[in-house]
Amino acid sequence: MRKLLSCCCLLWLSNFVYADEGMWLFNALPKEKLLTTYQFEATDDWARHVMLSSVRFNSGGSASFISSNGLVLTNHHVAAETLYKLSTETNNIASEGYLAKSPDDELPAPDLELNQLVSIEDVTERINASVTPGMSAADASKSRQAAMAKVEQESKEATGLRSDVVTLYGGGRYHLYRYKQYTDVRLVWAPEAKTAFFGGDADNFEYPRYCLDVTIFRVYENGKPAEVEHYLKVNPGGAMYGDLVFVSGNPGRTQRILTTAALEYQRDSRMPRVLDLLRRKEILMQQYALGGPEQARRGQDELFGIQNSRKAYTGMLAGLQDPTFLHTQRELERQLRIEASDNSPWEIISNVQQQRVQLIDRASTLRSHVYSIAEDLVLMGAEDQKPSTERLREFRDSNRESLEQELFSPAPMYDDLERVQLADELARFVELRGGNDTLVARVLAGQGPRERAASLIKDTTLFEVAARKKLAAGGASMIASSTDPLIVLARMLETEYREVRELTEQLDEQERQAYAKITELKFQAQGDSVYPDATFTLRLAFGVVKGYEEDGTSIPSNTTMGGAFDHETAHGQEKDWTLPTSWHKAKNAIDSTTPFNFVCTADIIGGNSGSPVVDREGNLVGIIFDGNIQSLTADFYHSEVQGRAVAVHIAAVLEALDQVYGAKSLKEQIGK
Amino acid sequence: MRKLLSCCCLLWLSNFVYADEGMWLFNALPKEKLLTTYQFEATDDWARHVMLSSVRFNSGGSASFISSNGLVLTNHHVAAETLYKLSTETNNIASEGYLAKSPDDELPAPDLELNQLVSIEDVTERINASVTPGMSAADASKSRQAAMAKVEQESKEATGLRSDVVTLYGGGRYHLYRYKQYTDVRLVWAPEAKTAFFGGDADNFEYPRYCLDVTIFRVYENGKPAEVEHYLKVNPGGAMYGDLVFVSGNPGRTQRILTTAALEYQRDSRMPRVLDLLRRKEILMQQYALGGPEQARRGQDELFGIQNSRKAYTGMLAGLQDPTFLHTQRELERQLRIEASDNSPWEIISNVQQQRVQLIDRASTLRSHVYSIAEDLVLMGAEDQKPSTERLREFRDSNRESLEQELFSPAPMYDDLERVQLADELARFVELRGGNDTLVARVLAGQGPRERAASLIKDTTLFEVAARKKLAAGGASMIASSTDPLIVLARMLETEYREVRELTEQLDEQERQAYAKITELKFQAQGDSVYPDATFTLRLAFGVVKGYEEDGTSIPSNTTMGGAFDHETAHGQEKDWTLPTSWHKAKNAIDSTTPFNFVCTADIIGGNSGSPVVDREGNLVGIIFDGNIQSLTADFYHSEVQGRAVAVHIAAVLEALDQVYGAKSLKEQIGK
Repeated sequence: MRKLLSCCCLLWLSNFVYADEGMWLFNALPKEKLLTTYQFEATDDWARHVMLSSVRFNSGGSASFISSNGLVLTNHHVAAETLYKLSTETNNIASEGYLAKSPDDELPAPDLELNQLVSIEDVTERINASVTPGMSAADASKSRQAAMAKVEQESKEATGLRSDVVTLYGGGRYHLYRYKQYTDVRLVWAPEAKTAFFGGDADNFEYPRYCLDVTIFRVYENGKPAEVEHYLKVNPGGAMYGDLVFVSGNPGRTQRILTTAALEYQRDSRMPRVLDLLRRKEILMQQYALGGPEQARRGQDELFGIQNSRKAYTGMLAGLQDPTFLHTQRELERQLRIEASDNSPWEIISNVQQQRVQLIDRASTLRSHVYSIAEDLVLMGAEDQKPSTERLREFRDSNRESLEQELFSPAPMYDDLERVQLADELARFVELRGGNDTLVARVLAGQGPRERAASLIKDTTLFEVAARKKLAAGGASMIASSTDPLIVLARMLETEYREVRELTEQLDEQERQAYAKITELKFQAQGDSVYPDATFTLRLAFGVVKGYEEDGTSIPSNTTMGGAFDHETAHGQEKDWTLPTSWHKAKNAIDSTTPFNFVCTADIIGGNSGSPVVDREGNLVGIIFDGNIQSLTADFYHSEVQGRAVAVHIAAVLEALDQVYGAKSLKEQIGK
Repeated sequence: MRKLLSCCCLLWLSNFVYADEGMWLFNALPKEKLLTTYQFEATDDWARHVMLSSVRFNSGGSASFISSNGLVLTNHHVAAETLYKLSTETNNIASEGYLAKSPDDELPAPDLELNQLVSIEDVTERINASVTPGMSAADASKSRQAAMAKVEQESKEATGLRSDVVTLYGGGRYHLYRYKQYTDVRLVWAPEAKTAFFGGDADNFEYPRYCLDVTIFRVYENGKPAEVEHYLKVNPGGAMYGDLVFVSGNPGRTQRILTTAALEYQRDSRMPRVLDLLRRKEILMQQYALGGPEQARRGQDELFGIQNSRKAYTGMLAGLQDPTFLHTQRELERQLRIEASDNSPWEIISNVQQQRVQLIDRASTLRSHVYSIAEDLVLMGAEDQKPSTERLREFRDSNRESLEQELFSPAPMYDDLERVQLADELARFVELRGGNDTLVARVLAGQGPRERAASLIKDTTLFEVAARKKLAAGGASMIASSTDPLIVLARMLETEYREVRELTEQLDEQERQAYAKITELKFQAQGDSVYPDATFTLRLAFGVVKGYEEDGTSIPSNTTMGGAFDHETAHGQEKDWTLPTSWHKAKNAIDSTTPFNFVCTADIIGGNSGSPVVDREGNLVGIIFDGNIQSLTADFYHSEVQGRAVAVHIAAVLEALDQVYGAKSLKEQIGK
């Protein structure tokens, strides 16, 4: 039997597994594979240095320490949300860029949280011990959540570090991740959007590329630049054709463990709905932007994010709709089920998918920034009455700092934009639940979605941080008696929200138990060559710098800074293919042969944006900012035929700082 | 009982019915209402002259004869499809406009059909006689279709005129419309898109406006300009504040007859899906246009059409989602049902809606131009084996001329655009039916949607008109044995297509019978003040030129040509707010006080675009091109509080021809 499975795996390997697959845990690196394939010894010191030099943007991205005085390098598009919050009608940093001439000019980000992973501990036994055989899914879910909360709480109290229990292998393992948190983060330098996002939505997920998609922050402690022990030195001569490179970052989510029933749910139910939603919001934000340049500025960051997701999901769904992929997965699963003494895990997962379909259109919340504040306050009021371990995860004491940073953020909110978005969400609420639904009738209160949204936005106090703080401080009783119309609305939806969330968590628990069993089977069959799906936690990927063939054309691994000007000319210097004035002024000074962007075969996905690319010595050679269109299947499988990770070369960052931005002093700090 | 209903109607009137409501049949004009309200006597001669001066663009729009030598005035956006087909990469008429210096320069449209309505005859009894009590819906549908076909066929043979039996009042009446057809239609003049669509998608459905949304064609007979007996004379001094005006055009579809069950189906099932589809296609076409200026040109006409529909449907759905509207309708219906001895019509319609929900996602066709040619050929092959009266409507002998004009149109088709669209349709087919569906598996033939579309487009012969003609001539046997991959695909879907269509037609028949009964009840209750829903046939609407209040601002009825330059300046002369060079050159010559656009209270909807606006004397004062955003509820109800029809003033057309386009000779023909 084992033999059959191995044969099948080989067959499968030939189609969907490649040498450089894997988003590896730092406490379970594929050392042997690296040694035999690439003659590289990943020593504990090497791994520890890379791990401690890596940084997570809690808002959704990756980064690295690049100096002893706290400089942090990430992507412009990871920084975009902050750049946008720091921008005003008259000083559009998100579009025009920024350079702090001195430390005093470094601009505090309103609500950033950066995390440095410092340790990993396996707590699987402790978590699993909380669930006993015969427990209902509802009880098991609550008991497990409480056990996780307890471990987190104890660790936080003992170490003072942010402590997250991470569910790996869909429930097969539980690891405790401890992070040092940085919440005083300041903007040092950002280039213009025109070079960071050169080629715009059209070039996004394409290659060759010519983007300076980077931004530099600095972390502070006690009002002073933080002293950082582990940071990356730079190697401007690295990342050339054929080089082995490593990517250390936080891939957000992959779903490679999914059974075919779960893949079918994604293909036929979830992803088509996600895409409908994204396209809806894309049109909405485009229409809003037509209101004028200030509306365009206000909506820009969100529109870019939506377009990025829409393109990514389109690629993912295309991967799932290719019949050969699911055909192969079905065969693999059939073989694994022959291995298994017990087929119930697959049956449970299949059953869970059917229940998810029932739940998918049961709207119980509104995707609106200002409404989410009301919802958080209403939930927080009730949750704070319970012991921390029994609360919904985001309201536990261990998460309070992150929650409050978000809830009380002074970042600007625009009532015209919030009105447009809330109106659309109310309309969508009617569509999802049907106009005759009694909850819909209560939510609309006799008005059409547009009129209702206008009156809610006009009368709410939640645009004021002080009002939010007052409600939070007042707790359950003040929130229960608040007449703020958005708080009233969130109270109206609370029961339905909690019911849908509890049902979802029960389904999640059923899946966790089932995937835990399937994972054990896989470990038995494939040994430790199994890495867990991405969970927005630190992983190491590796690969080789190399180009690929597309439609009979050979696409080289590297582009150059000079190529950016050629690319601009080729597109008639129009629309998104316009380099900023600073580049045109510096054209003669720039060494046109400087490597600009490059591709490698490392296994990455969204969340990896901003990840440092390091060489064998652990020196920084680049920074991930994209995957090409052929890599978009990565949610379900990694492919090296054409799929590539796309990075900015560190040499281009240094050359641009020097020749384009006159930032010599900043440049000199990097790697020092 | 009658009294109760009347009371209710008054209540209803106060909310949703206004003085100028109605899209009236030319053989049942509201003469008394016009006399009492506006002291206007609509004589038979007046009505006949306006009717015979009106023109229908079969491709979906309205127009009028404006000279004895066959000049036809319509909107630029009605002409757009033709302008696009006449454009090439190097001569972009759709964007840059056109002026024929002499008759020899007038450009033949590749596939336009214009219709002039010449008579209307009530054939209700003959059609209803074909359906006997106790017939199944399937039999009744077939029998009624056959009766309609027979009436059309006989009329066509007797008169040589295009003869359409039109279903009115949802099945309450059947009228035979006879049209003179014009198929040799030539382009005389079109302005630049920049003035025709000034303000773009942002200004669409807004007011005040400044659009020269007009184009002039000429109809030919026997190779010579047609001699036209009835045409409109012009009154450049008309259409000022307070004037009574008439709109003679072809409103496409309203659904004011719908029962609340049918309205709920529209609100909760159909319209949300239509909007998802429109947004999907809008993003698809935007992405295609990013490929370069030539792609933008190729996709432009379709993208504009999609954006226009998306905005219109958004307004329609918003109207349905306003709880007060459905609440009022429900009350009205309750009263009418008390009146009725028999409640079965409402129950049947309610039941039909539930069946429509079952059918709505059962995809059986692909929305692709090149695929629709394959589908038509496959269906035609089989249909032509039957007697004409038993065929699907579009394949009857009486429709053959229109069908062949479309099927064998030499208008350009672009394989890259068709590939992108077909790939998206294949993906949507998978989404709608689910990836495990056996028909989906056959359609994809083992490939992903993108790869499958690429191979279908690469190998089909249907881009060549000659290949289509050969297949059509070869008939059923040649089509059955064809190996053209799109023909093979259409054959694969034929059974499913026919089944879905037959089920739909059965549902339609059930509704027709039910609405016929409800219509009789309404006639009893409201007398002849009942006009039928729009059916893309000629109607007369009327109203007054007047502005409205919006957000406390008073919006005047008329704009001026000088205002266009101010509007351009106010928007920074950016994006879609850029007047063409011709206007800037002519700025000093243009009389800036010339009325440009105006609004009136007439009851219009999509399909009315291009409708002549005439005064009491039947002289041309303007041309409808839009409705404002508040008028978008017109599908379900007419409102005069803010809802307005938007028109180009004829004075602006004359002034522009003279001062901007140097078209004095053309101007002199108008009204002569």
